[in-house]
Amino acid sequence: MSTAIKNIEVKLFEVPLPEVLSDAKHGDHYHFELVTVTITLEDGSEGTGYTYTGGKGGYAIKAMIEHDFTNALIGKEGTDVEAIYEFLEWHIHYVGRGGIASFAISAVDIALWDIRCKKSNQPLWKMAGGTSNTCKAYCGGIDLMFPIEKLLKNMDDYISRGFNAVKIKIGKENLDEDIERIKAVRDHIGPDITFMVDANYSMTKEKAIEAIARFKGFDITWFEEPIIPDDYKGYGEIVDKTGFPLAMGENLHTIHEFEYAMDQAKLSFIQPDASNCGGVTGWLAAAKLAKENNIPVCSHGMQELHVSLVSAQSNAGWLEVHSFPIDEYTKRPLVVENFKAVAPSTSGVGVEFDWEKLQPFKK
Amino acid sequence: MSTAIKNIEVKLFEVPLPEVLSDAKHGDHYHFELVTVTITLEDGSEGTGYTYTGGKGGYAIKAMIEHDFTNALIGKEGTDVEAIYEFLEWHIHYVGRGGIASFAISAVDIALWDIRCKKSNQPLWKMAGGTSNTCKAYCGGIDLMFPIEKLLKNMDDYISRGFNAVKIKIGKENLDEDIERIKAVRDHIGPDITFMVDANYSMTKEKAIEAIARFKGFDITWFEEPIIPDDYKGYGEIVDKTGFPLAMGENLHTIHEFEYAMDQAKLSFIQPDASNCGGVTGWLAAAKLAKENNIPVCSHGMQELHVSLVSAQSNAGWLEVHSFPIDEYTKRPLVVENFKAVAPSTSGVGVEFDWEKLQPFKK
Ligand SMILES: [Mg+2]
Ligand SMILES: [Mg+2]
Repeated sequence: MSTAIKNIEVKLFEVPLPEVLSDAKHGDHYHFELVTVTITLEDGSEGTGYTYTGGKGGYAIKAMIEHDFTNALIGKEGTDVEAIYEFLEWHIHYVGRGGIASFAISAVDIALWDIRCKKSNQPLWKMAGGTSNTCKAYCGGIDLMFPIEKLLKNMDDYISRGFNAVKIKIGKENLDEDIERIKAVRDHIGPDITFMVDANYSMTKEKAIEAIARFKGFDITWFEEPIIPDDYKGYGEIVDKTGFPLAMGENLHTIHEFEYAMDQAKLSFIQPDASNCGGVTGWLAAAKLAKENNIPVCSHGMQELHVSLVSAQSNAGWLEVHSFPIDEYTKRPLVVENFKAVAPSTSGVGVEFDWEKLQPFKK
Repeated sequence: MSTAIKNIEVKLFEVPLPEVLSDAKHGDHYHFELVTVTITLEDGSEGTGYTYTGGKGGYAIKAMIEHDFTNALIGKEGTDVEAIYEFLEWHIHYVGRGGIASFAISAVDIALWDIRCKKSNQPLWKMAGGTSNTCKAYCGGIDLMFPIEKLLKNMDDYISRGFNAVKIKIGKENLDEDIERIKAVRDHIGPDITFMVDANYSMTKEKAIEAIARFKGFDITWFEEPIIPDDYKGYGEIVDKTGFPLAMGENLHTIHEFEYAMDQAKLSFIQPDASNCGGVTGWLAAAKLAKENNIPVCSHGMQELHVSLVSAQSNAGWLEVHSFPIDEYTKRPLVVENFKAVAPSTSGVGVEFDWEKLQPFKK
């Protein structure tokens, strides 16, 4: 039977967060948005992909898929995932090349990969590189406004859940406060826990350089997004001046943006997010570029999917376990064993939503 | 009375084109989308802004303004246009930095400029620089698939409408065909008409360089978008190898992208489009950057608005008269006198839609 695309169903959910989460640049998060895309082929095979946002853009993503993608995709060969990716990039080019289009294409691409893996009866980690089914993982909170006591309690929670690596937000107006939080966390977790910081590009170059000087003694593994993601050369200058390991990637949406980063930003870690850089296809392209540049590939957000993608790479870095708990709305919340995240072994992308649990949040 | 924002009304129109228009990369256009945004302040003042697309993305733009912007903007000071621009950039940052967000922000910004100009009882050209109320203008067709005879008839139409500058699409599979069309047009229009070509980034660097070698003798004023807009360094290499004047800008959506272009692309002309680079505020920022880099600022699309913006600049380049005839759905279709486009003298941005004429195309 034909494997042409027969139907595309898009759903939007506004999932409340257990508490308000804040970072230096995106303000307060009360909920996250989840956009799911379920694609059915003529032969009855079905796959589900998705993307998420911090609370804005979900309606636009849904509108683009419904109004601009669906009719154009119906009838197209559903197993030629890369051809559809390429088609969509050009189809939407004039209003695309990043932004909403990247999120929309990502959701469709993940659905098609789900079908591809199911048809091959393979888990994603095998089809996306196959190096391993486990990877290093760290917990990252959106915790800039947590009082220190609560911040430290959060660290205990991470460690009690089986992790040995943590990340906190920095980027307070007053750098002293950032350093105070960093010191408190390092003192609290001891020397054996891996520790990263993330400023969500709230700093100037100068402030970032000053901050780095004051990181000394706290054994910080990376400094994430010290400055705006658009300033690739600025990242390079910070590295030239400090030699400190920098990380970014959650805001890079096109392969060109990853190329600029590789070319100019002198990163030590790259953190593509398959929900906004073109799905599995886009993420793998970024991972390949990272490998060619001898950089470990990490991830941002949606741990339940990225665990398979990161594990599969020979240049695997760290999986971020994000504080948007999408995995809690799936049939298999993230599994951690021996400090490592474990990829699902079921065929498909391994992310099966618990539709009943999501139902109350449907828009 | 308060000048806080009271109401925001968004409308989407799918306006059919008189005939199917095709270029090298976006395929066939049957209609264009027009998204209008009408903002009312508490004191009763009202302004209308808009953006447009080649047929895709309109629903997503409308959804973003309605779901992500409206509630956040109601109550904000409506006369502080730059503050709102800045607010929206950050408000939508995670799903923004280009793409749909740029179009959505543009429409809102133009509406606020309309209010600003009306409140000052000034036309846009005066408030956006004030250098002049007229500028050079050329007609550009989406005419890649027109047989040569029709292409030449199109040139006659342009000239009969009062223009002395024209642009055609190139980017046929076979470069010989492009050159044949260029030769036919130059032979037809004679030596006194300014003549540009636009490949809509359909070429490789190598092909673009070969094309430029074959432009010799046809007096081509600029070569627009020979290669993908993302490859800023590629533009620079073409210029290094040929010295030929290149133009781009319709696909640059953020000030950072304009900065990359200035830094790396060695352009002779820049062509920002206020409908997708942040409205009047974004366009003026690009124009300022161009001035600092001694480059004339041109425009792409929506001639009825850009005539005011281009005319107002001391580094004014050429106004593109695009073949999406938005101006025909306004109360004042573009005015051309003595080969120059004339900016409206009414207060406001000078673009008053003919809602009755648009009504049949409302979605
Ligand atoms: Mg981050
Ligand atoms: Mg063009």
